[in-house]
Amino acid sequence: MRKVIIAIILMPFIANAQNKTDSAFIRKLSDNVMVYGKAYDNLHYLTKQIGGRLAGSSQFTKAVQWGKETMQAMGADTVFLQECMMPHWERGGTDKATVVSVNGKKEKRALDVLALGNSMGGAVTSEVVAVANFDELEKRRNEVKGKIVYFNFGFNPTNLRPGKSYGEAGLYRRSGPSQAAKYGAIGVLIRSLTEATDNNPHTGTMVYNDSFPKIPAAALGLQDADYLWKTCLQNAHVSVSLTTGGHFLPDAIGHNVIGEIKGTEHPGQFITVGGHLDSWDVAEGAHDDGTGIVQTMEILRAFKATGFTPKHTIRFVLFANEENGSRGGLKYAEVAKAKGEKHLFALESDGGGFTPRGFGFTVGSDRLKKIKPWTELLMPYGVYEFTEGGGGTDIEPLNKTLETPLSGLQVDGQRYFDVHHARNDVFENVNKRELNLGAINMAGLLYLVDKYGL
Amino acid sequence: MRKVIIAIILMPFIANAQNKTDSAFIRKLSDNVMVYGKAYDNLHYLTKQIGGRLAGSSQFTKAVQWGKETMQAMGADTVFLQECMMPHWERGGTDKATVVSVNGKKEKRALDVLALGNSMGGAVTSEVVAVANFDELEKRRNEVKGKIVYFNFGFNPTNLRPGKSYGEAGLYRRSGPSQAAKYGAIGVLIRSLTEATDNNPHTGTMVYNDSFPKIPAAALGLQDADYLWKTCLQNAHVSVSLTTGGHFLPDAIGHNVIGEIKGTEHPGQFITVGGHLDSWDVAEGAHDDGTGIVQTMEILRAFKATGFTPKHTIRFVLFANEENGSRGGLKYAEVAKAKGEKHLFALESDGGGFTPRGFGFTVGSDRLKKIKPWTELLMPYGVYEFTEGGGGTDIEPLNKTLETPLSGLQVDGQRYFDVHHARNDVFENVNKRELNLGAINMAGLLYLVDKYGL
Repeated sequence: MRKVIIAIILMPFIANAQNKTDSAFIRKLSDNVMVYGKAYDNLHYLTKQIGGRLAGSSQFTKAVQWGKETMQAMGADTVFLQECMMPHWERGGTDKATVVSVNGKKEKRALDVLALGNSMGGAVTSEVVAVANFDELEKRRNEVKGKIVYFNFGFNPTNLRPGKSYGEAGLYRRSGPSQAAKYGAIGVLIRSLTEATDNNPHTGTMVYNDSFPKIPAAALGLQDADYLWKTCLQNAHVSVSLTTGGHFLPDAIGHNVIGEIKGTEHPGQFITVGGHLDSWDVAEGAHDDGTGIVQTMEILRAFKATGFTPKHTIRFVLFANEENGSRGGLKYAEVAKAKGEKHLFALESDGGGFTPRGFGFTVGSDRLKKIKPWTELLMPYGVYEFTEGGGGTDIEPLNKTLETPLSGLQVDGQRYFDVHHARNDVFENVNKRELNLGAINMAGLLYLVDKYGL
Repeated sequence: MRKVIIAIILMPFIANAQNKTDSAFIRKLSDNVMVYGKAYDNLHYLTKQIGGRLAGSSQFTKAVQWGKETMQAMGADTVFLQECMMPHWERGGTDKATVVSVNGKKEKRALDVLALGNSMGGAVTSEVVAVANFDELEKRRNEVKGKIVYFNFGFNPTNLRPGKSYGEAGLYRRSGPSQAAKYGAIGVLIRSLTEATDNNPHTGTMVYNDSFPKIPAAALGLQDADYLWKTCLQNAHVSVSLTTGGHFLPDAIGHNVIGEIKGTEHPGQFITVGGHLDSWDVAEGAHDDGTGIVQTMEILRAFKATGFTPKHTIRFVLFANEENGSRGGLKYAEVAKAKGEKHLFALESDGGGFTPRGFGFTVGSDRLKKIKPWTELLMPYGVYEFTEGGGGTDIEPLNKTLETPLSGLQVDGQRYFDVHHARNDVFENVNKRELNLGAINMAGLLYLVDKYGL
């Protein structure tokens, strides 16, 4: 009984002392990143010297070498490449679309388009059937044969987290082409997945249903989307020509780049942090996901610079091929399982390099409740909430295969879909301080997980 | 006793019902702003059609007319102008600075500068005494006579809220010129109050001490600041020529623009919300403070559109002359006091149109404790914390004169000082969704204050 009482009396003191040690260490990390951080300079190199780096491109190969050398220079205990095969899709030239006639009268109105990733190229000219959503497509399915279908499904502006709107509208990008092909359409256009006020089209991956013809498919920027929608509502016959050149080459060899700081107590137990090294071809892949990559590397640099020696081995992983195949993440989990590795936790940053607001967790609600007090330690750096659900495409296979608990950095993403998968996802749209704050909060969370477990 | 028990039993139910009514109304406001909001379009007009609007400029006068007409069109019960006299400072041409010699060797390196607001023009050429801070100036005060002093005091990157760094470095902009003139300096340059990675100089107000000569003073962009600092550290003799043209014209007539929704129960009791209509001359005044202006007007529009009828009269105030005189805010409080008006609360948005994170309050800690649960109602829209201390330059006089409780919107300000008082404070750097979220949270807070008091 006495022991219990003493324990109860001492606990707040111990907890308090722990908190002070922890908050002091996180502050030390933060100061180091804010003063000596290399994330912004590294992002400049990745975006400006290497550029867009789709799986299979020479830029992706360059990025792998750069990632390996940079983590070595940062003092990782080991850096190694993990081979995986990746789909190799190429855009094959400049995508083009033009309104060629309205009610039989010739037109020459160019539309700014980008073919959807993984779509097959083609040249089609036909009348447009413009629909607001899949329900309307169903109702008008008899009109679709031989036509180009335009899906005008937009973001719902009343969703206060734009990721929700992306999820809803994303259905049209992913499965719109085959839904239309099912009824005989020969091409598809979609409204880009954005609320941006500019006219940049946003690409992104789509998936054909093999039961139907693989018709060309492209996204329109919002000004052209509004124009086409209005023109189709006001005129019975609007014809468009669409030319895209997408095609697959044989699968390419790619690599995950894996840096490690060896654990002092449990070197065979792993904590993973990462982002994806590939990006779409048309932009610099700054927010998607250059920022996740340079944050991952920054945590390695800051851990080394502050002399942090984790109990468990921390792996800093630059994943291959998230955008149009997810083969890097799948390979990482496959190898982990084959080797019987123990994976304690995995964390990903793939929501853009904006100011952090929280972390989403796939850990079970009991564990989540246990770690919620950590938000007090992170709040000075921006993170104030831990929510249920979250991770990242590249680390999900670890959870599926090994039941590894996951988390994803959640940021102030109001601007994310202004640039996501579009030509303006460039270095200039990343703020140095916001980028650094992401790395600081991630480093803090990794430190806490390594120290206290989950 | 029975009554007390019933009251205790019922209270959670009542509170719950209130919360539901309140959260439903705030959601209605939010949906209306996100779908029908005019803040972004209004900001476009203010920044692109009117532009920079320093007190005394013809653009400021245009902005007053536009503000009045726009609030009338939005259905304000009344809109009126409140006259005040404003200082009328003009830049008087293009500010110039050049490094003319280094260790006696001729140079022609141009430095991008902007004269500080309210500084007096002049043309000086002299050696530079570069100091890190006021302490160093004190130590080297005997070297300063006849020289140009350069203050290289920078933002402290480890401050996680950049407003703190602004406060610290702001001393050099405000009082640096007279501190140097005290020891005989003939000109002053300062490192701009920013951490931006570009080279834009940032202007802002300064105040001469009348005991010393009013010497020319200008701010350097950070690339040139770094260059000058390094050059002065490496060379004993660095000479610069500085030419500025600042001067005062006679005080100008200006106006606060005041729109009202009359209170249904207490029309003679006022709640004020506002921003400032003036801006520096060199930019469009988008984040500072066009966003506060269009958010203020947006709340008026949304209240009308959702049929909200406040108990107290709500005043939507576009204040005059915040940047270099604060005369609008002073006049507003002066008139309120002279008329014996009762002012319940005042709220300002003057920290940029970024995603909201909280409100800062000058209300006393007991009141703050009472209203903290409101954060739960605002959290879906971004606001998660109410902190002690806050308001805004334009509403502070109300607090000083009438002890009116104040609040200021607190935003994710990591990017604010990239554009603050610089040429790149333009419409393009404002995000529509972030701007709207500010208006939504402010409207929610005003609704709660009107309903429950403080």
